[in-house]
Amino acid sequence: MGMVGGGRDAFIGAVHRMAAALDGHIELVCGAFSSDPAKSRASGADLYLPPERVYDSYPEMFERESELPDGERMDFVSIVTPNHVHFPVASAALEAGFHVMSDKPMTFDLDEAKRLQALGAHTGLQFGLTHNYTGYPMVKEARHMVRSGQLGTVRKVVVEYPQGWLAKLEEASGANKQADWRTDPARAGASSCIGDIGTHAENLMEYVTGLQITELCADLTTFVRGRKLEDDGNVLVRLEGGARGVLYASQVSAGEENPLSIRVYGEAGGIEWRQEEPNTLLVRTSDGHAQRRRTGYGALSQASADHTRLPAGHPEGFVEAFANLYRNYALALQARLAGETPRADLDFPTVEDGVRGMAFIAACVASSASDQKWQHVEL
Amino acid sequence: MGMVGGGRDAFIGAVHRMAAALDGHIELVCGAFSSDPAKSRASGADLYLPPERVYDSYPEMFERESELPDGERMDFVSIVTPNHVHFPVASAALEAGFHVMSDKPMTFDLDEAKRLQALGAHTGLQFGLTHNYTGYPMVKEARHMVRSGQLGTVRKVVVEYPQGWLAKLEEASGANKQADWRTDPARAGASSCIGDIGTHAENLMEYVTGLQITELCADLTTFVRGRKLEDDGNVLVRLEGGARGVLYASQVSAGEENPLSIRVYGEAGGIEWRQEEPNTLLVRTSDGHAQRRRTGYGALSQASADHTRLPAGHPEGFVEAFANLYRNYALALQARLAGETPRADLDFPTVEDGVRGMAFIAACVASSASDQKWQHVEL
Amino acid sequence: MGMVGGGRDAFIGAVHRMAAALDGHIELVCGAFSSDPAKSRASGADLYLPPERVYDSYPEMFERESELPDGERMDFVSIVTPNHVHFPVASAALEAGFHVMSDKPMTFDLDEAKRLQALGAHTGLQFGLTHNYTGYPMVKEARHMVRSGQLGTVRKVVVEYPQGWLAKLEEASGANKQADWRTDPARAGASSCIGDIGTHAENLMEYVTGLQITELCADLTTFVRGRKLEDDGNVLVRLEGGARGVLYASQVSAGEENPLSIRVYGEAGGIEWRQEEPNTLLVRTSDGHAQRRRTGYGALSQASADHTRLPAGHPEGFVEAFANLYRNYALALQARLAGETPRADLDFPTVEDGVRGMAFIAACVASSASDQKWQHVEL
Amino acid sequence: MGMVGGGRDAFIGAVHRMAAALDGHIELVCGAFSSDPAKSRASGADLYLPPERVYDSYPEMFERESELPDGERMDFVSIVTPNHVHFPVASAALEAGFHVMSDKPMTFDLDEAKRLQALGAHTGLQFGLTHNYTGYPMVKEARHMVRSGQLGTVRKVVVEYPQGWLAKLEEASGANKQADWRTDPARAGASSCIGDIGTHAENLMEYVTGLQITELCADLTTFVRGRKLEDDGNVLVRLEGGARGVLYASQVSAGEENPLSIRVYGEAGGIEWRQEEPNTLLVRTSDGHAQRRRTGYGALSQASADHTRLPAGHPEGFVEAFANLYRNYALALQARLAGETPRADLDFPTVEDGVRGMAFIAACVASSASDQKWQHVEL
Repeated sequence: MGMVGGGRDAFIGAVHRMAAALDGHIELVCGAFSSDPAKSRASGADLYLPPERVYDSYPEMFERESELPDGERMDFVSIVTPNHVHFPVASAALEAGFHVMSDKPMTFDLDEAKRLQALGAHTGLQFGLTHNYTGYPMVKEARHMVRSGQLGTVRKVVVEYPQGWLAKLEEASGANKQADWRTDPARAGASSCIGDIGTHAENLMEYVTGLQITELCADLTTFVRGRKLEDDGNVLVRLEGGARGVLYASQVSAGEENPLSIRVYGEAGGIEWRQEEPNTLLVRTSDGHAQRRRTGYGALSQASADHTRLPAGHPEGFVEAFANLYRNYALALQARLAGETPRADLDFPTVEDGVRGMAFIAACVASSASDQKWQHVEL
Repeated sequence: MGMVGGGRDAFIGAVHRMAAALDGHIELVCGAFSSDPAKSRASGADLYLPPERVYDSYPEMFERESELPDGERMDFVSIVTPNHVHFPVASAALEAGFHVMSDKPMTFDLDEAKRLQALGAHTGLQFGLTHNYTGYPMVKEARHMVRSGQLGTVRKVVVEYPQGWLAKLEEASGANKQADWRTDPARAGASSCIGDIGTHAENLMEYVTGLQITELCADLTTFVRGRKLEDDGNVLVRLEGGARGVLYASQVSAGEENPLSIRVYGEAGGIEWRQEEPNTLLVRTSDGHAQRRRTGYGALSQASADHTRLPAGHPEGFVEAFANLYRNYALALQARLAGETPRADLDFPTVEDGVRGMAFIAACVASSASDQKWQHVEL
Repeated sequence: MGMVGGGRDAFIGAVHRMAAALDGHIELVCGAFSSDPAKSRASGADLYLPPERVYDSYPEMFERESELPDGERMDFVSIVTPNHVHFPVASAALEAGFHVMSDKPMTFDLDEAKRLQALGAHTGLQFGLTHNYTGYPMVKEARHMVRSGQLGTVRKVVVEYPQGWLAKLEEASGANKQADWRTDPARAGASSCIGDIGTHAENLMEYVTGLQITELCADLTTFVRGRKLEDDGNVLVRLEGGARGVLYASQVSAGEENPLSIRVYGEAGGIEWRQEEPNTLLVRTSDGHAQRRRTGYGALSQASADHTRLPAGHPEGFVEAFANLYRNYALALQARLAGETPRADLDFPTVEDGVRGMAFIAACVASSASDQKWQHVEL
Repeated sequence: MGMVGGGRDAFIGAVHRMAAALDGHIELVCGAFSSDPAKSRASGADLYLPPERVYDSYPEMFERESELPDGERMDFVSIVTPNHVHFPVASAALEAGFHVMSDKPMTFDLDEAKRLQALGAHTGLQFGLTHNYTGYPMVKEARHMVRSGQLGTVRKVVVEYPQGWLAKLEEASGANKQADWRTDPARAGASSCIGDIGTHAENLMEYVTGLQITELCADLTTFVRGRKLEDDGNVLVRLEGGARGVLYASQVSAGEENPLSIRVYGEAGGIEWRQEEPNTLLVRTSDGHAQRRRTGYGALSQASADHTRLPAGHPEGFVEAFANLYRNYALALQARLAGETPRADLDFPTVEDGVRGMAFIAACVASSASDQKWQHVEL
């Protein structure tokens, strides 16, 4: 694996590296860690990489790596740059023949997303997108329960993603690099809150239920004076098959950390998962006792068991969930490289999820500006 | 206290009686417990009432009680009938000179609510409404914190009220009296879910924040085939001062019990209260440690302490919260009867809260039927 | 019901009155609320009692009430005095022909307990003891599960009762009446911590498991300098049938409120109940999903349902559990007075539980002073 | 890093490898993964190791690795074998000049522990022991709070470690390798439950409080018929400075997963940490609001922050805590190899902790067989 972005002081690059390293299937062999060559080199040294595999830029990396022999050359590139640099790097990588694992949201806007989808289809290369919350074992369990009909027809879905880290104008100081680019329309795109975390909520909702959001009604707000993009969004949603839901994301829910949650109610029962205690899935039925299903314990689905590394009671966290995406990506790629068809259970988010995410952002932004109640999610 | 409704097999009548009895300030002295005189008499006997104070109808009760001497005659009437009988009983009581404590929603529709408000103003009698969730000590604490500015300007409010008891067509059997009338437009009014529990959510939101909902966008749904009123409602709300929020209520969230909750986020922090664990208030700030404030423990507001009966760690529940309304109502009435002005801290929901609740229901129903995004809450 | 003790400023008297009033079966008709006649009278006035039924002393009360006609005379007396006054009042009441409901621990020492047991047997009057934690619906459920063999043979039991209210020398100030007498050997007895709350733990352990503690090994400590009795106790216990356990109580677990808890493990599973969230019973099995059983929800035992007043999701608390003892006591007494045999399910702690509690205290005190490992619990 | 043990189907070997890989400082370069050479080779291949670095036995590994040049040769060996093989491998490694990271308990008995301690002192090589629970950020926070005096003098400590996986005679089947050796006196040592998990509890208690257990009173039980070692142990403990405590461990607490917990109470407050929700530390004080301190949030100690990889709200789990030991071990070793003194904050359990653990086991076993109440913990 090579990496673009994720130099010193970056946040998500280190997460990707831990996730990739955890299971021993992936080795970081090269990188262009920063647009600043000196910083890229320093970062590479921190990571014990040989200097000749640390590049000054991603075009240089793709060119030089292409020249290396099989077995030495990186197999895929991990993209951990700000949003506006996703498309340029991903399309260059695909064009150079490298498989891609990209951070989300997939691109800067929906148009780029469709072009990337076309390029992916054209090259036939493997494309992964790190909607990492789908990697949790109990999210897999939730999805299995819903999709195998254990709740009956889905009626209502509630997904919440409140954060509080932007309750003040953090981007004013210049010292908070994350706040800086995530609230900047030139780098983040048309949305900050919905783009950064609302898309995780949307992806989780669709992943667990297997139902697509068809129309929505959004109320986006910029609470912090001086901020250029919205920092809060409340959305009513309607899904395929008549299900209704509420989805909200916030960066100004002061004091909240990162407690993404999902609740799904069907005719016969309901489930609840909260990232704050990710190894528990609450299962409620209309007339029996609620169950507290726990990672690794009792009779869980194969999908859940396959994504669990430890015996029950040994808490697995964010990195392990993230690593499940990398592991599935790596094992699927191994199969492809060996000329085999990857096993269906090695699932990870793809370019199609990325297109849906960008369409969701676009619909929320359009809806919020409109007096009309319902906005279709147009791909 | 006399009671109208609440005979054998009724649910809420027994709650009112426990709440009224708890503190020893109120004695049940008479009742018209059912429109079926035999049932009324049997219920009165269960309650150890002398037969002559158990009446066949509420008009009879008001007439006969009026004839009794001071000190023997009931002081106020508690109304625990289905919605469509609230207004007739309450207006008859006021006209007969009795103070009133009524179950919610206050009336069948907004028009009745306004007429009751006028009658209340005209007679000058004391009117209470049992939005009982405002009686919890930690709800008082939450309100105190928000209103005294500890969170700064309020930005976002989320109130949820999911229940699951109507996930099936319970009203079909004829055996579930509660389901029967609460889903019947002739007895419940224009709404089931929003009317029954959505108004609790609305009242809690306004009580804690001190901010009124100015406009809303509602998506009401009837999920259970054959049901005549909506059983689920998702609402985006906008409040005075620029705050935004989400409010939802549901009777088809299969497996949920009654976990009303509220979260309020201001510039400087957030609070969270959940009825499932009512003695805890989570207080989060942007940069310090979250606090777990507990009923009766540590330095709490006077308002909270005044509504707490036990030392910390002795769980207080639904009945105690309900009883706080009755106690405040009774002590305020004692003061009035003694010619004094009741203390301001003896607060309980009033006819004004009832009018707002009916206006909220009307706005939700209108919004849900409309293609327009925002609906004003018109009194 | 008459009451001895429980005047203004007392803590537990008010709890007994709320518990007795809640269900409408019991009316407070008289009292000797304090050894100070003026205080007794003021307290009676607070409670709206007629002055002639408020007495200056309990001997006076028993004498005068005895002279009243049937139907007017109190039926039983509730004793809410400090420990050293339990026996004198209870024995006088029984001798005067009154049934008794007494606070715990039953007496000052084991010898008094045995004498009271004999007197109870001799008079045939009804005697209840307020080990109130056994009144919680989910404690009833726990007991039902264990006793009906759902866990298999019991192996291990853990009961904890940590409090923190005596972490400082509260009794030094003179302002804390509770601290004052509960740490005074002349009024509390041979033990403070074990006597006051350790006996609740012991009673709960034996109630839920149906197994008696046969021997124990105790380490009692007085942590606060200047205190006259122990304020912390750790106890290893062995029960009938080979079960082992840990029981501890503490008054110096700084910051703890009142989180009594019990865990029972058998061959086939385990249960866990915590007073902090009293409406939940966690049920774990060796290979299935844990269950979160909730008061009033799903398929619970008859014993649990019979002691529940509200639908699921309406939290019941300390007072409701306490009231279950009073309700059972009152209904059993009604049956007796009507010449019937009380129903077996109207259970409440009796004089036998009281004797066991006093024997437990004596064994803990003896064990702690001994170098020998195991101490038999001798009745 | 080389590894001894941890071949296919082993449990803890994979954990060590994930923990070592997570931060990128350690590379697995060789191993003798099983006493069965074929299995060792297969395991090495699974791990993408070159065949020439996969050895048939640990003596062979130490011999051959010693012959490799600096920079290629492994620096230290990770020992993940059953207990009875810890000492032979560790002593051979030290004698061959390799640093050691060993699983716990350190040796088969106290005598071996002392010999290893002497050998460690003699060789001057670095020795680490994976009492991994001390690696959690909030355990570091707890330790910091206690040791910096924020709770005042420690009075009471409670450590619980209940598991349920041996509630049945799992070792009878032959299919459960873990159950097999952990209950076998020839491989596990004089104790199963206390040796395997009781030592974790003891280590956590001493780590957090900084106080050593001086004497104890233990009640060890073998509940499962046919089992050769105890599967449950309840222990009263006394610590330096007058603190008292309860420590218990169990393998037959049916349905429990792995919820190790610790509570420490001092004069001024108490703390509570539970592995089931490892990112939360509850801090209680006698008169203020309880705090819910969270990994990565608010003002935490440097020690806690240094062992945290992610922003607050991104759950860190068992592997991350385990990895903190490996990271500190690796960075300390890097410093040593560079001729520097490792930073004091790079702490990890050492040979001294191992000796204490073995002395604790010996004292528990002796105490349980004795009629005398208190047993000194003799090193």
